[in-house]
Amino acid sequence: MERVRLGVVGGGQGAFIGAVHRIAARLDDAYTLVCGALASDAERARASGAALGLDPARCYDSYAAMFAAERARADGMEAVAIVTPNHLHHAIASAALDAGFHVICDKPLATSVDEADDLVRRAAAAQRIVAVTYNYSGYAMVRQARAMVARGDLGALRLAQVEYPQGWLAGPLETTGQKQAVWRTDPVRAGPGGAIGDIGSHAFQLVCFITGQTPQAVLGDLTTFVAGRRVDDNAHVLLRFASGARGMLWASQVAHGHANALKLRAYGEAGGLEWAQEDPDRLWFTAEGQPTRLLLRGGAGMAPEAARVARIPGGHPEGYLEGFATLYAEIARAIVAARGGAPIPADVVFPTASDGALGMRFIAACLRSASEGGRWIEL
Amino acid sequence: MERVRLGVVGGGQGAFIGAVHRIAARLDDAYTLVCGALASDAERARASGAALGLDPARCYDSYAAMFAAERARADGMEAVAIVTPNHLHHAIASAALDAGFHVICDKPLATSVDEADDLVRRAAAAQRIVAVTYNYSGYAMVRQARAMVARGDLGALRLAQVEYPQGWLAGPLETTGQKQAVWRTDPVRAGPGGAIGDIGSHAFQLVCFITGQTPQAVLGDLTTFVAGRRVDDNAHVLLRFASGARGMLWASQVAHGHANALKLRAYGEAGGLEWAQEDPDRLWFTAEGQPTRLLLRGGAGMAPEAARVARIPGGHPEGYLEGFATLYAEIARAIVAARGGAPIPADVVFPTASDGALGMRFIAACLRSASEGGRWIEL
Amino acid sequence: MERVRLGVVGGGQGAFIGAVHRIAARLDDAYTLVCGALASDAERARASGAALGLDPARCYDSYAAMFAAERARADGMEAVAIVTPNHLHHAIASAALDAGFHVICDKPLATSVDEADDLVRRAAAAQRIVAVTYNYSGYAMVRQARAMVARGDLGALRLAQVEYPQGWLAGPLETTGQKQAVWRTDPVRAGPGGAIGDIGSHAFQLVCFITGQTPQAVLGDLTTFVAGRRVDDNAHVLLRFASGARGMLWASQVAHGHANALKLRAYGEAGGLEWAQEDPDRLWFTAEGQPTRLLLRGGAGMAPEAARVARIPGGHPEGYLEGFATLYAEIARAIVAARGGAPIPADVVFPTASDGALGMRFIAACLRSASEGGRWIEL
Amino acid sequence: MERVRLGVVGGGQGAFIGAVHRIAARLDDAYTLVCGALASDAERARASGAALGLDPARCYDSYAAMFAAERARADGMEAVAIVTPNHLHHAIASAALDAGFHVICDKPLATSVDEADDLVRRAAAAQRIVAVTYNYSGYAMVRQARAMVARGDLGALRLAQVEYPQGWLAGPLETTGQKQAVWRTDPVRAGPGGAIGDIGSHAFQLVCFITGQTPQAVLGDLTTFVAGRRVDDNAHVLLRFASGARGMLWASQVAHGHANALKLRAYGEAGGLEWAQEDPDRLWFTAEGQPTRLLLRGGAGMAPEAARVARIPGGHPEGYLEGFATLYAEIARAIVAARGGAPIPADVVFPTASDGALGMRFIAACLRSASEGGRWIEL
Repeated sequence: MERVRLGVVGGGQGAFIGAVHRIAARLDDAYTLVCGALASDAERARASGAALGLDPARCYDSYAAMFAAERARADGMEAVAIVTPNHLHHAIASAALDAGFHVICDKPLATSVDEADDLVRRAAAAQRIVAVTYNYSGYAMVRQARAMVARGDLGALRLAQVEYPQGWLAGPLETTGQKQAVWRTDPVRAGPGGAIGDIGSHAFQLVCFITGQTPQAVLGDLTTFVAGRRVDDNAHVLLRFASGARGMLWASQVAHGHANALKLRAYGEAGGLEWAQEDPDRLWFTAEGQPTRLLLRGGAGMAPEAARVARIPGGHPEGYLEGFATLYAEIARAIVAARGGAPIPADVVFPTASDGALGMRFIAACLRSASEGGRWIEL
Repeated sequence: MERVRLGVVGGGQGAFIGAVHRIAARLDDAYTLVCGALASDAERARASGAALGLDPARCYDSYAAMFAAERARADGMEAVAIVTPNHLHHAIASAALDAGFHVICDKPLATSVDEADDLVRRAAAAQRIVAVTYNYSGYAMVRQARAMVARGDLGALRLAQVEYPQGWLAGPLETTGQKQAVWRTDPVRAGPGGAIGDIGSHAFQLVCFITGQTPQAVLGDLTTFVAGRRVDDNAHVLLRFASGARGMLWASQVAHGHANALKLRAYGEAGGLEWAQEDPDRLWFTAEGQPTRLLLRGGAGMAPEAARVARIPGGHPEGYLEGFATLYAEIARAIVAARGGAPIPADVVFPTASDGALGMRFIAACLRSASEGGRWIEL
Repeated sequence: MERVRLGVVGGGQGAFIGAVHRIAARLDDAYTLVCGALASDAERARASGAALGLDPARCYDSYAAMFAAERARADGMEAVAIVTPNHLHHAIASAALDAGFHVICDKPLATSVDEADDLVRRAAAAQRIVAVTYNYSGYAMVRQARAMVARGDLGALRLAQVEYPQGWLAGPLETTGQKQAVWRTDPVRAGPGGAIGDIGSHAFQLVCFITGQTPQAVLGDLTTFVAGRRVDDNAHVLLRFASGARGMLWASQVAHGHANALKLRAYGEAGGLEWAQEDPDRLWFTAEGQPTRLLLRGGAGMAPEAARVARIPGGHPEGYLEGFATLYAEIARAIVAARGGAPIPADVVFPTASDGALGMRFIAACLRSASEGGRWIEL
Repeated sequence: MERVRLGVVGGGQGAFIGAVHRIAARLDDAYTLVCGALASDAERARASGAALGLDPARCYDSYAAMFAAERARADGMEAVAIVTPNHLHHAIASAALDAGFHVICDKPLATSVDEADDLVRRAAAAQRIVAVTYNYSGYAMVRQARAMVARGDLGALRLAQVEYPQGWLAGPLETTGQKQAVWRTDPVRAGPGGAIGDIGSHAFQLVCFITGQTPQAVLGDLTTFVAGRRVDDNAHVLLRFASGARGMLWASQVAHGHANALKLRAYGEAGGLEWAQEDPDRLWFTAEGQPTRLLLRGGAGMAPEAARVARIPGGHPEGYLEGFATLYAEIARAIVAARGGAPIPADVVFPTASDGALGMRFIAACLRSASEGGRWIEL
């Protein structure tokens, strides 16, 4: 298939997530990076573009300029990856949709429910794809877990226990000027949620993605442990599902000894499973009355939905970049289908604007629950 | 030292916890089992006693008879181990204290806060020891964790995350007549809490024991997943401490794939630790900015409080029975001291009636919180 | 059943393995410790006996005196546990057999093949039990592994990979006077093998016990890494079985980071398994073309041979002392049967003098192979 | 820097390692794939090229044609990746060097020592780079291990224990026509070694790479367990180093339950370390007398040599493709330097023809040792 022509907004030199998106786009060779508005400073934008080998004529110093110029080209960009701080997502994505581009937006989709809902509407109106890179849904064994739940290996869901502990913000790192810490603890740029927004939203999305169910109500106890910090750095959340299932969600940035220890466990009437992001090629499954089985990506027992997105044999680890790249590859298939007006292929799976809006609802509900002393809030 | 003369109530042939108590008492050779009221049926009481090699004259068919007879002997029992279902604890313990015996009672101490408070008062009045076998506090590495928190390795406590998942009651096992399932899901014999009482109470005690702090308020979401069951089989609880620390507690009997997966993690300003009951000889510790260290019982870095209670070199696993036996050995030292009117030695550590009463308060608060729709309840 | 009347030689105050044997004998309540020759110094013998609550009249200062006196008593000792340094095993065991006692001897059985063969002959002649406490064969999941191999779960054996790394002798600990280090590196007291004798023999026995096969030939490369040490502290051994199976054995006392990391893996045509002593309640099994299964002691899939020797539910760890105690319990059943002239019950399993002699053959063959530059030696 | 213009020989549709090389080349954006001789069949070559988006004019049906045509272009290929079965490596690499191209060759470098030595000579004569993709040396934590050994964290080396068990050839897979199994068990295409060549050579290279030492002598016991197989499928090897260090190497293709379980442990006077390919972001290190420390890629304690090659924060796993890509990125830096006649930058590390030749020596020595009944052979 012809590669998707991709542009990026944000992710100039020194940024973390921008580089990740570019590797993810490159890994499966489904995209060509054709242009960028990599920084708002014209000089830095050009230098960053040069470092990436971009055509200098297609290194823009604003997304508006990029959208206008690329729209006018026969070989112009088809889709834009938005990798700026969160508070800019809505404006850029809106403009991109207005200009007719598909959008690949880092999570969270926006900084408020209203912004996110607006993007859902705009995406539908523009008939363009808005993908949100909840990247953990790209891991092969996450797809295995989802497939196993869907086909009934667990029976009716009872429990979803998810956690995402990190330790990097256990001290006042933002006061040292560390770039990631500064913007992620700034309610203006990151949105009102701290841990709940940055990583709690990932945990929530993973629960929905794997179980196929969305919690109906949440109860949150959010805390700021580091003096002077302006957002929460620890979130304890209880979940209730319409089905009667229950859940717990813990997201923390002050848990010494953890890097990105996202872990999900789900239990149903007939079995339980466990998956951990730091050991992503393995999935533990226990059917009632049987020994626990260790499923390895590429090993025995793979569901087609998981086998399809694996690149290399089992025991040769795939990691974060491969999971991220799987989302990009899925999105590329959707974009290529859209070129000819075809529907998105039935087996393609990636989070969209609605998932992004749901994530915003979750963050808002947790914040409200916490601010009201800890009571149940409907999603 | 002269061995403590021990009697037992309950634990006849076929019981689980009775055998555990007897092994625990025997392991460090600090007790002599001298008598028993092993069953209420006279025949079974005698047969059970014979199987244990007890003097037939000291195999009683009621605790009342045993207390009366043993009190009259010069070589009579000094302490009684109570290993009956929970609803009998209070009556037996009261009678034992009235008769002047020390009491070693399985957990929970009683089936209500009132009963438990009553035993606290009676123990004080009788000047007798009432020990409650929250056995996990006997593990060497639990004592290591407690010592590390106490000496400040974690700094000010922020988080306590504890969980105790089991899977054995994921189906309606009690309907098959399985003895353990029958009485533990019977609110009359077990008390009003199911998972929250049977294992949530262990988890709660472990939090208090290791952190040295008692939660001030709890919020519980208790569920009964198995149709027809009369008590909760899953408990989600949020914890708040007066110090500002927060916690999460999960106890479940329907989590397929888990046997007795009690795990505690605690995080403070300066570090974090993790301990799991199914791998009890290891403790993971991370000091801020340093690689995680794996502390092995008997290896480098042992605190004296942990080293003191280890029997064999590191790498030769000690397990559940050794942890249980450590409590028994500690209690024996207290009883021997009490013989001569001496105070309990300063380094002796075991849970007492107050800890048992606190556990009952925790269960009651969780039940109340859940019944009121999930709100914060002061302990 | 009436408890076995046990005496001990060795294991006075401060000894490690003596205390382990006594706990093991006590744990399942199948023995009564009636007498001891705990130390060669009369004073220390008496003091050690008093600490154990022994009748002072039955605290002897020589095994010869003990055997003579106990033989004359109606309630005299039936079996003797020998827990002295290795070089004394043969003389004491010979004398015990001559005096009509059963023998429970710590491993290795002797310090030479000739000594060991002599004990095999004497045991047969005396019609007495000689048990050798290769304690790892007492673990429930080792018995599970043995049962699975025996019933064909692995198919025809191809490979046995065993290792026993320790790190405690990585430095010249014996020069500090540390008691265990001193005698275990002394070729006179420990026998000519260092690591190969002390722990390599355990590893070898485990291979034979689990696979049901004995290597036919070995090739050893033994090394002494610590300057001045008089015995090997690292052993690399290749194994060949008559069946065509192959194996590798590594025993080391200089492997930093390991305590008692005995691990066995076995592979056959149809499957493979793995067991590690430091996590003894778990066994990993993979049948061809299926996901790896994690078997937990007390969980699903237990063979009767393993279930029979477990005391407590799965997830409540049993450890080193329980494994050791299982051997003692098995031996007690054999001794009780022998009282009435009955054969050893068919399901009783413990290592005997022949296993001990085989172990000596293994050590001797490795030493010879190494001294001849590394060539294959028939066992 | 300008991207390296890369061509490939082999790796047409359906091949495994060809796709891996292409992803590795793409991941860090240091190469442009400009041409290929992807298959010997002209039709398949063109179809494979089209699938990769190659210019049809640069899809060749023989490496000879490709070398001739690309040499004549101003924008011609600079380096060729050779991803054919092993028996073609020498001819293709020779031709590439003769034509002035740099060579990136999959391992093993050749099928005999003579071939490999010849390539070493030719590389030197042509002043071209010959890189051999022993890809495990690209993992960040392998470089961490190497740096720690080099800076003395382990002290003088004593032991290197390495293993590489797989289970995929436990049955006669080659008889089913499975492509990988067919050629890897064919002594003509794969070379005379089976497991020893395919994976034993990886294990050997890892030992040399991390310890900085090359074994002086080896003793091999090679076995073919699957009836009818023409090469070994299990290799047991003992290692001796000139320094007095010792080692063990196990490579197996019949070890059920293992996928690519390459693991290396090294022990010196002062410490020990452990690294496993299936968990590549972690390294376990124990300094004498201290608790074991868990080093995480991107976490505390990273050596500059490891930190330099990591792309993303710790806890976001990097895997096999990233390790492979690191080699490619290193090689690109060397090629770019060579463009201007500069020496290879001092910090660039990748295996070269000499390492490839050493690997061939190792394989040959093991085969000879085994065929002579298991005796020590100098390397």
